[in-house]
Amino acid sequence: MKLAKSLQQIQPSYIREILSAAQAEGVISLAGGLPDGDNFPIALMAQSLIDLPTKPELFQYGHTAGFGPLLDYFQKAYQLPENQSAIVCTGSQQGLDLIARAFLNPGDKVVMEAPSYLGALQVFGLAQADVVSIEQQAEGPDLEQLESCFAEQEIVMFYAVPDFHNPTGVCWSLEVRQKVAALCIKYGVTLIEDVPYRELRFTGEALPLVSSFCPDHSLVLRSFSKIATPGIRLGLVTGKTDWINPLIKVKQSADLHSSIPMQAVLLDLLSHGEFDKHIQNLRDLYQKRYQVLSDNLNQKLPSGCELNSVDGGMFVWLTIPDCDVFDLAKAALENNVAVVPSSVFYQQGAKITPALRLNFTNASEAELALAVDRLVEVINAKCTCA
Amino acid sequence: MKLAKSLQQIQPSYIREILSAAQAEGVISLAGGLPDGDNFPIALMAQSLIDLPTKPELFQYGHTAGFGPLLDYFQKAYQLPENQSAIVCTGSQQGLDLIARAFLNPGDKVVMEAPSYLGALQVFGLAQADVVSIEQQAEGPDLEQLESCFAEQEIVMFYAVPDFHNPTGVCWSLEVRQKVAALCIKYGVTLIEDVPYRELRFTGEALPLVSSFCPDHSLVLRSFSKIATPGIRLGLVTGKTDWINPLIKVKQSADLHSSIPMQAVLLDLLSHGEFDKHIQNLRDLYQKRYQVLSDNLNQKLPSGCELNSVDGGMFVWLTIPDCDVFDLAKAALENNVAVVPSSVFYQQGAKITPALRLNFTNASEAELALAVDRLVEVINAKCTCA
Repeated sequence: MKLAKSLQQIQPSYIREILSAAQAEGVISLAGGLPDGDNFPIALMAQSLIDLPTKPELFQYGHTAGFGPLLDYFQKAYQLPENQSAIVCTGSQQGLDLIARAFLNPGDKVVMEAPSYLGALQVFGLAQADVVSIEQQAEGPDLEQLESCFAEQEIVMFYAVPDFHNPTGVCWSLEVRQKVAALCIKYGVTLIEDVPYRELRFTGEALPLVSSFCPDHSLVLRSFSKIATPGIRLGLVTGKTDWINPLIKVKQSADLHSSIPMQAVLLDLLSHGEFDKHIQNLRDLYQKRYQVLSDNLNQKLPSGCELNSVDGGMFVWLTIPDCDVFDLAKAALENNVAVVPSSVFYQQGAKITPALRLNFTNASEAELALAVDRLVEVINAKCTCA
Repeated sequence: MKLAKSLQQIQPSYIREILSAAQAEGVISLAGGLPDGDNFPIALMAQSLIDLPTKPELFQYGHTAGFGPLLDYFQKAYQLPENQSAIVCTGSQQGLDLIARAFLNPGDKVVMEAPSYLGALQVFGLAQADVVSIEQQAEGPDLEQLESCFAEQEIVMFYAVPDFHNPTGVCWSLEVRQKVAALCIKYGVTLIEDVPYRELRFTGEALPLVSSFCPDHSLVLRSFSKIATPGIRLGLVTGKTDWINPLIKVKQSADLHSSIPMQAVLLDLLSHGEFDKHIQNLRDLYQKRYQVLSDNLNQKLPSGCELNSVDGGMFVWLTIPDCDVFDLAKAALENNVAVVPSSVFYQQGAKITPALRLNFTNASEAELALAVDRLVEVINAKCTCA
């Protein structure tokens, strides 16, 4: 059989190759987007897991939209207005895929900030959407570019990660949030607000969801991979019921429903009295690691390299002038530190800022310090900024 | 947002409405495709479930193709040849969806027997494929129709359920299997062999997979919903590695990977010393229930109605001449027995055989006998065959 046309356009994922090489012995990986595996809330999930054999009803076929009690929980926890509902997905990755399948025809236009989350680029590629890139600035998307793009082109949706963006770590300011929402309403564009890192803020106060300013013009994607665990593969989409229903229809074909035992365990975890404390511990842990990475880089980096500072999330973005970052990442891997070159986060043909994405959640403080030494060696050897 | 073109063609699922109504108190449901919930192998899964909290590594992100030890198990259990591999899916429903997304462009032709599995009709509808229906006979597809269809049209794939077909219960004879495989090889058509009910044979000897006669022209879809449990949502696709790799690529966008804790539990279950005995118990249970349903129907049905006999699976097919089966199913529901009218199993425009699909795996023997009384009342009242 020949590959479908939609699949022929999908590039092999270089990041997958890096991640695979990053598992080699002796390599410190700042490449992945993995939460810390030693700090999963397994203790808070244990009783629920142990009780599963006493609940055979959880092992039968279930509803496509999700496990009833979990949906009830979300309805309350997120205070969904009357015209909104929720669908549980097999990871928020599936949520995005369902949205693309339900609402995009080939050639439809989707706006994204550049650089962008790779998994979203893949989904929109598979949907054969026409991705329109706009620049990202320190406080969010370039609003002028965004407005002229909305005004001049027929845009279906704007996909964004406003809280601790992947790959840059940027968090949109309150003003940007309000202005983006106003533009979505003005031009009838749907905001797809992806917030997997929202709970991982370790400095400052949480800002309102962008969607809270345009509830009828948005869908929110939530992940439980960062605050619960990724292996259970559970995410959530909330928004207008009129838009959730088509997602349920597509999900019926896509996988019927997500694992019910895992949904029941997630519900018990989210309702657990100690869950908030777990999140706070996670924030503290990640903040310390971020600080070690950031301090070491700021001390040791040659001038010309620029590290953004972040208030949460899992990544920092290190810009390096005049450098082949692909080549740099390869050399770093040979020096036993894995990082991701910025080039993979741009759609083909986009103007690429030379940079590296560095993850700080899945290596110890000692490893992070050592990783910086190795990385700086390579930067000094390879880059003209040195 | 407007619905994508592909979704506009999908009809609301009448069967979902029936299944929902079938849950009302007092209704005996022969409508669903549910395995018996009182006989899940929970006891054989219990230790594995209880041990999950001691294995935090199962809760991290995993490989898209599946949990390594489970893939190793499948490689051995199904004796996959060197050029073949496997991908674990979020239910076999996802397997089929991935196949359609990886290999079908809108307008591509897919052959199916009529009537057909509803979930497959939905997947191919979403893929905007052109479904070509051929008639099903007592021993499988009409081979003359199949060959002329393969010879005269450009067919990409032939989707089939050769073991205890849903909805008819038909099991292909050995001769038909060999001939279909030969036709697939001759005309370069890929067979998508879906075998969710294969292990549920209670009479006679198992026949070889059709794919065993055309291994390089087929993909096999396996489900663990019937022999393990549906709630864990795990299925499998096996076939040439050249065809499995594109499925992995699509799955990366679709949901990254399936639940790892559930895959680990499935592996423990399949490897359990008592698992074969569980399957044998299931076969015995379903055979007894089938016998009660079939004996009662044969005794009480008016002449003109025809019940097929089956050697396994979960369904029988009851043909009823000169009858509006949709109307009949509605009247049956009012008389507290839920059944599925044949019309839902045909693509739009196809010639419909008036019939009902009756499930015998999810009601007790007493309920099955009572359900027949209620159904026969309605048939006598509504149908000219009475």
